[in-house]
Amino acid sequence: MSDIIHPSDNRNISRKELFSGAGQMIGGAALASIAGLGLAGCTKKGKETVAKYPWPYVKLDPQKSGEIAYENWYKKFCCYAVASGILQPLQEKVGEPYSVLPIEAFKFGHGGTVGWGTLCGSLLGASIAVSLIAGEEGEDIINDVIGWYTETEFPLFKPTAPKTEIKNISVSGSPLCHVSVGRWMKKEGVDFFSEGRAERCARLSADVAVHAVTLLNLWADRKYEAEYDDQPMKYQMPTQNNCDDCHA
Amino acid sequence: MSDIIHPSDNRNISRKELFSGAGQMIGGAALASIAGLGLAGCTKKGKETVAKYPWPYVKLDPQKSGEIAYENWYKKFCCYAVASGILQPLQEKVGEPYSVLPIEAFKFGHGGTVGWGTLCGSLLGASIAVSLIAGEEGEDIINDVIGWYTETEFPLFKPTAPKTEIKNISVSGSPLCHVSVGRWMKKEGVDFFSEGRAERCARLSADVAVHAVTLLNLWADRKYEAEYDDQPMKYQMPTQNNCDDCHA
Repeated sequence: MSDIIHPSDNRNISRKELFSGAGQMIGGAALASIAGLGLAGCTKKGKETVAKYPWPYVKLDPQKSGEIAYENWYKKFCCYAVASGILQPLQEKVGEPYSVLPIEAFKFGHGGTVGWGTLCGSLLGASIAVSLIAGEEGEDIINDVIGWYTETEFPLFKPTAPKTEIKNISVSGSPLCHVSVGRWMKKEGVDFFSEGRAERCARLSADVAVHAVTLLNLWADRKYEAEYDDQPMKYQMPTQNNCDDCHA
Repeated sequence: MSDIIHPSDNRNISRKELFSGAGQMIGGAALASIAGLGLAGCTKKGKETVAKYPWPYVKLDPQKSGEIAYENWYKKFCCYAVASGILQPLQEKVGEPYSVLPIEAFKFGHGGTVGWGTLCGSLLGASIAVSLIAGEEGEDIINDVIGWYTETEFPLFKPTAPKTEIKNISVSGSPLCHVSVGRWMKKEGVDFFSEGRAERCARLSADVAVHAVTLLNLWADRKYEAEYDDQPMKYQMPTQNNCDDCHA
């Protein structure tokens, strides 16, 4: 029964199995010929055109994705910022099916989903993009981006044209927007509705985009190895690692 | 500056403004003629076909969406369950652009995103679907679905063919998977990797799909009124309402 209760049970096995059959990455030459058909990676199915999932990936420049995420945070916030940092270059390089996707639909993830302070929107944006690109294999990448996020002092990203200056970096210990931004706000001594907080979240979004693309590129080169444990297998339920924050 | 820091500042105003211009809902007759063009709601933009966003909506049967969500939970869990409960009927009724979307890409939301216990995957699945359908206006609907979720005794849904029986209902007080499922598990006296817990989450997914479609149908009829306050405007930062759970 456990295999239909949580996908983690056999994820390591299926990841390797799936990996050996990974054929969604396409090089420049292959891309050109597929793109010549009008719909890269798409097939006719009855009267409708349906893209093969996961969608074709070409390696991206992590720094460029970071710059897009930083700039786009100021347009539609964190979730859109990271999703567009990864998916916008693919709309340009690959075209369809990426170009069919309205990336702005993922704006809702701001503030841990319309302000409820849950999953940091930057992580949600990365998860959506990674999943479209890597399919179920992408769950290991998502897990690793989240694990890395909880342990890293943010923000690291240095924009070429910063909107404002900020002083502090902080470790969240948690993938929750509320905890992550709250700890940084306390250290910086600023409110949520401040220019400094906006800048921190814009740079953090860039950091998440850079890291997600770095892992996706390793995956495309078949050099990616999952790093973090599966949370429900470790704790016997879905959870973060910072138990004492609420249960102390 | 505050208007570029958080979208909530002027959401009530823009919601009404946007509302008056809402023209994405299409009736049966209009749908037939648009579908006759091959791509419902799509326009040619250069060499590529780009769907107009938000995507066209036809009113759905909430109960049918609930049944799909319940059954699909057993295929790819909560986030996929609710997203497919709403989007699968639209793939059938509207076709493109919905049919271009690989709904299985949203499986990653299980266990509060690959098991990290953050935003309940059922709420994430609803958010993605609502956002594609209602655009930025959908943020009020998402906010209301989340608010309702935190205050409702779940599960309510009675499957026509239950996979197993469960005894208890519980209020989460939180949109977090960890808190929501944890409270129910304690009351029911079962582990996370149990058939009972699976059934609870499958029925809960059905509940969220039913409620989201109910609000979407009101919105399509221009009868929807936002109910819950904006969290960051209320608390001056993104957060849940159950402060004492962690800060007591």
